[in-house]
This record gives sequence, C-alpha cells and structure tokens, in this order.
Amino acid sequence: MLLHKIDEVRESIIKWKKEGLTVGLVPTMGALHNGHLSLIKKAKETCDKVVVSDFVNPIQFGPSEDFDKYPRTLDADMELCNETGVDIVFAPSANEMYGEGQRLSNDTLTYVCPPFFYVNKLCGKSRVGHFDGVCTVVLKLFNIVQPDFAFFGQKDAQQVIVIKKMVKDLNVPIKIVQCPIVREESGLALSSRNKYLSEAGKQDALVLSKILNNIKVCYNRGITDTDALKETAYGFLTDKHEMEYLEIVDKETLEDKKQADDNSIALIACRVENVRLIDNIYLKED
Amino acid sequence: MLLHKIDEVRESIIKWKKEGLTVGLVPTMGALHNGHLSLIKKAKETCDKVVVSDFVNPIQFGPSEDFDKYPRTLDADMELCNETGVDIVFAPSANEMYGEGQRLSNDTLTYVCPPFFYVNKLCGKSRVGHFDGVCTVVLKLFNIVQPDFAFFGQKDAQQVIVIKKMVKDLNVPIKIVQCPIVREESGLALSSRNKYLSEAGKQDALVLSKILNNIKVCYNRGITDTDALKETAYGFLTDKHEMEYLEIVDKETLEDKKQADDNSIALIACRVENVRLIDNIYLKED
Repeated sequence: MLLHKIDEVRESIIKWKKEGLTVGLVPTMGALHNGHLSLIKKAKETCDKVVVSDFVNPIQFGPSEDFDKYPRTLDADMELCNETGVDIVFAPSANEMYGEGQRLSNDTLTYVCPPFFYVNKLCGKSRVGHFDGVCTVVLKLFNIVQPDFAFFGQKDAQQVIVIKKMVKDLNVPIKIVQCPIVREESGLALSSRNKYLSEAGKQDALVLSKILNNIKVCYNRGITDTDALKETAYGFLTDKHEMEYLEIVDKETLEDKKQADDNSIALIACRVENVRLIDNIYLKED
Repeated sequence: MLLHKIDEVRESIIKWKKEGLTVGLVPTMGALHNGHLSLIKKAKETCDKVVVSDFVNPIQFGPSEDFDKYPRTLDADMELCNETGVDIVFAPSANEMYGEGQRLSNDTLTYVCPPFFYVNKLCGKSRVGHFDGVCTVVLKLFNIVQPDFAFFGQKDAQQVIVIKKMVKDLNVPIKIVQCPIVREESGLALSSRNKYLSEAGKQDALVLSKILNNIKVCYNRGITDTDALKETAYGFLTDKHEMEYLEIVDKETLEDKKQADDNSIALIACRVENVRLIDNIYLKED
C-alpha cells in the first residue's frame, strides 16, 4: 500500500498496535536495490508488519551535493515492495515532512544533532550537517511509524553508529537492527549511487572493496599498526581514484586507533568518475 | 510510587498501555509549588494515569547559573504527589539519564536543538544552550514515559512555544497542554526560584506582574505601538531591579511586533536580589 500522508500512516499503525502486532521500519531514500531488499527481508522475518519509507531527504544533502539528481524510482520501488510483502510504502513529499513553504534550515526547524565526536570525522568531515539531517529525518520517521524495530545497512557504517547513539542518548524505545553489506559478485558494495557510474567506472570502483579486503587480510596476518595497514592501499590507486578518507577506528565509538584490534573497522570514501562512493569492513568478522 | 530507574518506569507504562489507559506526563525540576499542582490536577482530569518527573536537568543550566543551589525538596514533592494521586514520580539521577561518567556536552551527547529563530531572543539570549538542554531532556522524558499528553505551564512561555515547535517539527505523537500561570494573591507568579527571595525581595518582585498588567491595560485602551507600551514600564523600576528584557512578540511564533495585536504576548525577565525572575501576559485574554 502506497501512502503519501503522515496521518494515513498513523491510522494503520494505531490499528496494528491495537491488534498487538509488531512493526518494523526500513528507512530508505528509494532507488531500492538488493541491499535494501536484504533489510526488508530481515524486517519481514522479525516483525508482523513492515513499513518502508521512501523519501529523498533534502536536509541531509549539502548545497553542492546530488539532491536534485539523486535517482528517484518510485514505480520500481513499489513493485519490489509489493513482491516482498511490504505492508506500507511511505513516500511523503518534502512539504508533508517539513511543512508547506518552510525554509529548511536550523533557523526555522528543530534539529537532532548527534555529538561532534561522532560526526567531525569520516563522512561527516566533508558532509557538514549531513548527520544532523539524517538523525532529524530518522527521528521524525520513528515518531510517525513508532516501530518496534528499525533496520539499517552496515554500508553506511557511520550512519548506523550515529543512529544507535541517538537512540541511546534520547531513550528512543526502538531496537536498531544492523544488516550486513550486500555486494555484487565483483565485490562492489551495492549503492543507489552506483547508477551514476559507467561500466569502466564500476571496474575502477572495485578498488574500494579490494583495499578493504587487503587491509583485513594484512590485519589477520598480524599487522596491527593502522598507518602501516592504511599504506597498503596506495598500490591499488590510479588517477581514476580521488581518495577522500581511509580510516581504521573502533566499530562502536569511532575512536581513532594507533593499533588495530578485533573491534576495529576500516572505512573508505573515494570518488570515481566524480561519484562519491563509500565502503567498510570489520577487520575480524564481517 | 517513587521510581528512580528508566526501566522501572517503562515496565509500568507498558502495562498501562496494554490495558488501554491514557498517560499524562508533568515534567518538573521538583521544588513543587501550586503552579505544578495545577498542572498535575489538569493531568489527573485529562488522563487515566499521571507521571510526574522530578529531575534538575544539568544540561539546561549554564556554567554560571544556579544548578548547584537549585532547590531540591523530593520528600515534600512526594507528599504533594501522593496527596494529589500521582501514579509515578520519576526522580532519576543524572547518571541514570545521561550515563555513568558521561561528560555532558554536545561533543559526546546527542542534542535536540530548537531553531535559532526561537531561541536567539528573550531567555535564550542570555541563557545560551538552555533550550537545547530543555528540548533534549523533554524528548528523553517523552521517549521514556511515552505519554499521550504532556503538561507545561505558561509561566515559561518561551519554553512551551519551543517545545510545541519541537513536537511539530519532529512529529512527536504527544499532545502538549499548556496551563495558565498561577500567582500569589499579590500577583507574583509562582516559581521555585522565589525561594531565593527575602520578604523585601518578594515585594520588589511584584514589579514584574505590575509592569505586565499595566501594558495589558494600556493595550486594551488602544495603545498598540510596542515601543510606547514598553516605555510604560520605566515608572515601576527602582535600583532594586536589574531588567534583562521586556518584549512584546507574537504568542505563537515569537516574532517581534512593531504594533501589538490580540495575538501578542508581553514577556519580562528581571533580576531582584540577583535572582532571575520571569513572567508574561497575553495582551488579549489571559
């Protein structure tokens, strides 16, 4: 069932809650791929009812980012959601979410701001305000859908950590379920932004997962110095790659590590054909 | 019933919700007086179950403010709550609310930040970060208690407006009920901070309500120019009064007015015996 209005969603939710049914939320920006599908499947396994939100959230994009050209494929998304037995696809307009004619800034809107320590690094360093926008829209969706469980992909590792921190800090009564990265056979992590890439670009993009896999292999062979581990990346890079960051940090707290350990995660952001791609890997299990 | 732990509160709430009972929350910092009592009575009228939170919230006090000396009277508060049939008094420690050994700053904690436009004026101008602290703790309490209704006094007018804005912006599924200011017979608005005043100070403090009443009288006699209305205050002031602000703004949006109208509110903050006191009045009804 496709719904565009907050009140319509709430009506269903209230009915479900009265029947004692559990609700799962999969927040997405649409352009659904098999990564999202794995979240939906997990939600179906875990909950009686599943809501997928499909909303390209303007306040998490910077002025020079790809908000306008971000892929919007609602018809295909609906097909996929119907096939997988999603109960509600919630696809609101920006006006429905933020108010008619509302200027979208922290001058006029209440924001949820994750701690500086979690956002002044990795993706947050180049995407100033991005995680404020993410946390704000996610909390809005949480309040609209009031799910028992919400499902996020490990692909956006910093995002999941920031959202878990928000849930803890604000006592949000929702359980966050984190699902593994889904990859193409080539190793490329699925992303809606892969649509921007040419075939040659997709080949060049494999370097992200190759670098991460190699760091994991090196770590498991005994190299723990994070500078040394990061240096193993350079052999993979060509002039097709514009590296933004490669970091090895604690997978819960995002603290920098001089020595990697079994709680470490390696994260990378790199531009290929001017498309910003991210990926990550746990050094121990994955 | 006095509870100190979040999980204990949640246990009761879940039980009540299963029974289909409505829940009202009265968030307080304790030191309960008849103003709080009016909120509790309203909550009792409106809801099946009433929770009063009693927590002096460290993150809404500035470093030079009165957090340490703020009155703490839990025994007396409990007595009053028992007399009025409050179901739960929730009096957590700071550790319970913010985590053991947690440094309380936006470097380490997720904050809810109301829009600059609502907080860069009136009390927010001198109390930088105050409303971030208020919104953060109120949203935490909302998420812990999950009430159907929450009750706030008009005494802290800017606070109620900021909280209503938060509820709207973040789609919080809670109805905010605003209750009128309760005054002593003298006209002095009840406040936990009145305890800091000597008898002479209490007399000097009457000037706040006198100034506001006089502005209301002048407005209802046809003076609408807000500068002219504000000038009527000066006759009341002595060297016992250290005025912080006197403003006439829209009662919903806090927008400055050149001409007062029936949607205007006059707000005052003034120090007496170095105690910061606030008060306000609707120019039309009250």
